[in-house]
Amino acid sequence: MFLRPPIIVINYKAYNTSFGPTALLIARAAEEVADDVGVSMIVAPPLTEIKDLVTSIRIPVFAQHVDPIDMGAYTGHIPPEAIKEVGAKGFIVNHSEKRLRVDEIAKLVRKAVGLGLNTLVCADVPEVAAALSLLNPDMIAIEPPELIGTGIAVSKSKPEVILNTVLKVREVNKSIIILTGAGISSADDAAKAVELGTSGILVSSAVMKAKEPKKVLLEMAEAMLKSLT
Amino acid sequence: MFLRPPIIVINYKAYNTSFGPTALLIARAAEEVADDVGVSMIVAPPLTEIKDLVTSIRIPVFAQHVDPIDMGAYTGHIPPEAIKEVGAKGFIVNHSEKRLRVDEIAKLVRKAVGLGLNTLVCADVPEVAAALSLLNPDMIAIEPPELIGTGIAVSKSKPEVILNTVLKVREVNKSIIILTGAGISSADDAAKAVELGTSGILVSSAVMKAKEPKKVLLEMAEAMLKSLT
Amino acid sequence: MFLRPPIIVINYKAYNTSFGPTALLIARAAEEVADDVGVSMIVAPPLTEIKDLVTSIRIPVFAQHVDPIDMGAYTGHIPPEAIKEVGAKGFIVNHSEKRLRVDEIAKLVRKAVGLGLNTLVCADVPEVAAALSLLNPDMIAIEPPELIGTGIAVSKSKPEVILNTVLKVREVNKSIIILTGAGISSADDAAKAVELGTSGILVSSAVMKAKEPKKVLLEMAEAMLKSLT
Amino acid sequence: MFLRPPIIVINYKAYNTSFGPTALLIARAAEEVADDVGVSMIVAPPLTEIKDLVTSIRIPVFAQHVDPIDMGAYTGHIPPEAIKEVGAKGFIVNHSEKRLRVDEIAKLVRKAVGLGLNTLVCADVPEVAAALSLLNPDMIAIEPPELIGTGIAVSKSKPEVILNTVLKVREVNKSIIILTGAGISSADDAAKAVELGTSGILVSSAVMKAKEPKKVLLEMAEAMLKSLT
Repeated sequence: MFLRPPIIVINYKAYNTSFGPTALLIARAAEEVADDVGVSMIVAPPLTEIKDLVTSIRIPVFAQHVDPIDMGAYTGHIPPEAIKEVGAKGFIVNHSEKRLRVDEIAKLVRKAVGLGLNTLVCADVPEVAAALSLLNPDMIAIEPPELIGTGIAVSKSKPEVILNTVLKVREVNKSIIILTGAGISSADDAAKAVELGTSGILVSSAVMKAKEPKKVLLEMAEAMLKSLT
Repeated sequence: MFLRPPIIVINYKAYNTSFGPTALLIARAAEEVADDVGVSMIVAPPLTEIKDLVTSIRIPVFAQHVDPIDMGAYTGHIPPEAIKEVGAKGFIVNHSEKRLRVDEIAKLVRKAVGLGLNTLVCADVPEVAAALSLLNPDMIAIEPPELIGTGIAVSKSKPEVILNTVLKVREVNKSIIILTGAGISSADDAAKAVELGTSGILVSSAVMKAKEPKKVLLEMAEAMLKSLT
Repeated sequence: MFLRPPIIVINYKAYNTSFGPTALLIARAAEEVADDVGVSMIVAPPLTEIKDLVTSIRIPVFAQHVDPIDMGAYTGHIPPEAIKEVGAKGFIVNHSEKRLRVDEIAKLVRKAVGLGLNTLVCADVPEVAAALSLLNPDMIAIEPPELIGTGIAVSKSKPEVILNTVLKVREVNKSIIILTGAGISSADDAAKAVELGTSGILVSSAVMKAKEPKKVLLEMAEAMLKSLT
Repeated sequence: MFLRPPIIVINYKAYNTSFGPTALLIARAAEEVADDVGVSMIVAPPLTEIKDLVTSIRIPVFAQHVDPIDMGAYTGHIPPEAIKEVGAKGFIVNHSEKRLRVDEIAKLVRKAVGLGLNTLVCADVPEVAAALSLLNPDMIAIEPPELIGTGIAVSKSKPEVILNTVLKVREVNKSIIILTGAGISSADDAAKAVELGTSGILVSSAVMKAKEPKKVLLEMAEAMLKSLT
């Protein structure tokens, strides 16, 4: 999977818009913006919706989480192989709403490499972002948990967290893609994320709860592109 | 959902046969046996496979697990509403490979009633089966964890556990459907489960790892029917 | 351990008063009230403080939690045997701030019986209280989590929850001691808990954060005694 | 706390020897060996035994685990402040039998610095050891979980794991103390740990289950000293 910055990852979470027809609608909007504006777009729907989205759209679909297991007798668990099987291109892992242990994250990144899946690991503070970037996932997102879902963008309210993350991560990992998450709700927030040196954003409620998701995505995409140039 | 005993619930777990074409093949086999012999059959595939099976077969599809949450900002979680949305008829909960807290089980059973979903709760010992049957799920399965996946059927090696479960559960809940799980691997094991007073079986590896899943299911179904009469 | 109602269980939690000299001071206050007024008093300090309290006071000391394990290679875990060793008389389990799975609660109650320890199991709703009382702990406490630490007593704001708990628990367990928890902060709240048919209270912040813990305990004890007669 | 290599950390776990008189006996043996031979010795008893050991011996006492919380309404949890209060000098964290999430480890290391406590973080593979050493604990122990408790020493059966850990950790952290854990059972294993470039060992069953713990510790200490020179 080739990702050209700027990148927008849409974490669907489990809102009432995250399932069924609206799930598809938002994915289509993301695809159109990706095509029209030339940004990289990833959608991360709930596990039950992955197969449907994969067959309907061309942009990469990620799982929001997978379990750190191999295939076998694991009732109620989803191994990385399962989302590969339904056509997902990768997975988010260690989101603040679904944290994992560091040995589990390490195992999942290793498994992803073997399966040809891409990984996006979340971190809450710059030190943890640096630590986890040593495990070599494809992307790392910095998300101060206290800002998630607030509409107060980390890129505006705590720019030093982003700057510090970029600094600390780059000391130990030159190539990892760094994203900004938590509270991103406007085009301006998205632009700021790029200006602070990250390659894109991890966004959720601003899109999932929007009256016009496509408009929100379009404005964010255009603002990020403008900041890049 | 109307379930006439004997009942066979197939827990797909996360085997390599639990996904894609083999997942559908086994579901079709289950459906054919249900039609031909007249037993009640439920399949419980991984979350990623539910939508596909629901659109392809007529027998009820269950989730192997759902999370004790409502819809909202829950990355990597699946609320009961999600599996209702894709057409599942119910869910297993508290399997020994995915235990929940008792307050979570209580919440899920309440939610299931509100959503019109059916519930199958697992328990490891008779006392716990009785305790959980007070929460009024539709079905309870007794599964001594030390026998799961062994091929040593609880109905044959520990018949007193089944008898004791039926006794203790019936003291506090007259109507709940009781199933026998753990190690059920032959038609004989299945027959014994019915003879000991339960309404059917919860089975996994014996079907999922079988060379001829349909043959296994057919023999189990016929043996159970014979024991009932 | 013989417990004559009314009973006051003081859950120390992990406040700054829960450790060292203040931990002992509050235990002494509890002991004096127990002696003076004739109520049963139990203190539940943090694990690190149990041995000290046990050697300093005569009223029973409980652990706030133990792990559902036997002795062995379990780094960072405390088996019931460990608190027996230091002289505790029992343990609380399944508090809303430290929930356990139902199979784990069942195992711990069985172990406690074998070790001669007493058990106090917490539940959030009447249905769960009834379910857990089937496991035969010595005491069950009903604590709606939304009221814990609020100072809004369940006995006053939701008396129907207490009445319903007594009703449902007594249907399946005639002898278990039922306690009222969550938000108990005044003598009046404590009295009401007894009037509604429970044998006492599980209290925390009202005592641990009090300027005069002894005065609070004394007033609660006297109010409960008055309600009993 | 000043630690001069070689270092022996004794993880008591929760064996029947980990409590009461034998807990003290082993601590005394450790102290004597530390005094006689001049190695640094740390004992990590269960939480319930810390206060007693602290008052009886002079070598540093660690907790086997603390919870990633501040003081407050946390029933059944132990914050770092609690073990500071009883005189412990630090804590182990993230042992394979009690893993934590990376954000929790980061929080605990920050808290320890503020409280003047020392930290020993465990890791299962070299990559994870390097990642966690970025969080700046005082010590890191490499312990392949598959060898823990086996008596098969990692230093002999998988020397490349130790070498690789030292290499990867030193790339990102020059000053952290690196220990070798898992399966260390003889003086020879201990010597090898030092020869491979680590500052000491994290040991458990070899001491806790020994007929003569002092003899085991003495031989290990002497072998390590010899390897250092």
